[in-house]
Amino acid sequence: MSVITKYLELATHGNAETFNITPRLFEALEDTELKNGVLTVFVPGATGALTTVEFEPGLIQDLKELWEQIIPSSKAYNHNRAWGDGNGHSHIRASLLGPSLSIPFSTGEFTLGTWQQVVFIDFDNRSRSRKLVLQFIGE
Amino acid sequence: MSVITKYLELATHGNAETFNITPRLFEALEDTELKNGVLTVFVPGATGALTTVEFEPGLIQDLKELWEQIIPSSKAYNHNRAWGDGNGHSHIRASLLGPSLSIPFSTGEFTLGTWQQVVFIDFDNRSRSRKLVLQFIGE
Amino acid sequence: MSVITKYLELATHGNAETFNITPRLFEALEDTELKNGVLTVFVPGATGALTTVEFEPGLIQDLKELWEQIIPSSKAYNHNRAWGDGNGHSHIRASLLGPSLSIPFSTGEFTLGTWQQVVFIDFDNRSRSRKLVLQFIGE
Repeated sequence: MSVITKYLELATHGNAETFNITPRLFEALEDTELKNGVLTVFVPGATGALTTVEFEPGLIQDLKELWEQIIPSSKAYNHNRAWGDGNGHSHIRASLLGPSLSIPFSTGEFTLGTWQQVVFIDFDNRSRSRKLVLQFIGE
Repeated sequence: MSVITKYLELATHGNAETFNITPRLFEALEDTELKNGVLTVFVPGATGALTTVEFEPGLIQDLKELWEQIIPSSKAYNHNRAWGDGNGHSHIRASLLGPSLSIPFSTGEFTLGTWQQVVFIDFDNRSRSRKLVLQFIGE
Repeated sequence: MSVITKYLELATHGNAETFNITPRLFEALEDTELKNGVLTVFVPGATGALTTVEFEPGLIQDLKELWEQIIPSSKAYNHNRAWGDGNGHSHIRASLLGPSLSIPFSTGEFTLGTWQQVVFIDFDNRSRSRKLVLQFIGE
């Protein structure tokens, strides 16, 4: 059993930009040479989050409409009044969706469904450099 | 320390059908003979998700009303326009709730509360055969 | 590799009271003397949940407004009709946000962002004694 920590860098533009990071997770797994275990993907930062989705343009748009509907960018957030950076909605969306995802792998493959991709959503309201944590525990 | 991967099969009917999988998780744990570690439950597929709840009919109904309220089945989803399978809401609900859950176990028991059960929710709009991943890491 | 299970006790008042538990996670990690691995934080109980947020009063208030907006405390929940304890909203909020969080650590530090804190939210409608599970797997 070993622990291997890697990082995945992304240049992001915010506003719920949604990245399919699945191919890079497979590359990282292959690189570790581990066969069985669990990958923890973690977002360091309070305005990005993770989930899985069938990565096709319709659903990516539907997800964006969900965020705007339940956590609108135009609401008067207390965060914005205090800090003036206008990204209150970014924080609240990220907290609701969550910063971590645990994905098992078995015989060298993630146990994802055929039409299921892992996505990072950047909820911030500006461009950023992101560095996600990929931590593998396995053998 | 070892990694043990098991599967849990379910015949599902969709429409937010909610399964209490706790007894089957306990059986699987006993079967591994592990005493301390973590179970990762993972849904392969983009229209099912996991959480915990006190499994009583009132709350199961309240949860169904939540999904219908914030992600209605009747909305005109972009996914449905493109693919015609009418399950846009299933995908969006599953992405919001999330496909993975990590549950510690200690001295051979999951660290669940007395009134807390682990549930799989099938958000799809048709019957399916599901195979959830149960991955134990521990000793 | 080893598994170390610890507990974090909190006296809570409910109504979406939000605790920054980050300093206590760091203390617990230091105590384990582990350097690389993953911490699973888990809430035993069906009316509390975990996430991360920039812990400042504006956002804590914004989060409370989110819960009240999408899962109002005043709605007529089926749970309340059956059990009369008036905390249907507490259960549904906790199920939506989720009871577990996985946080990697590397060279003795959690991989959190600078402005990102781990929070426990007590959604119940009364004071309680809580005992969260902190399970470390690593080396």
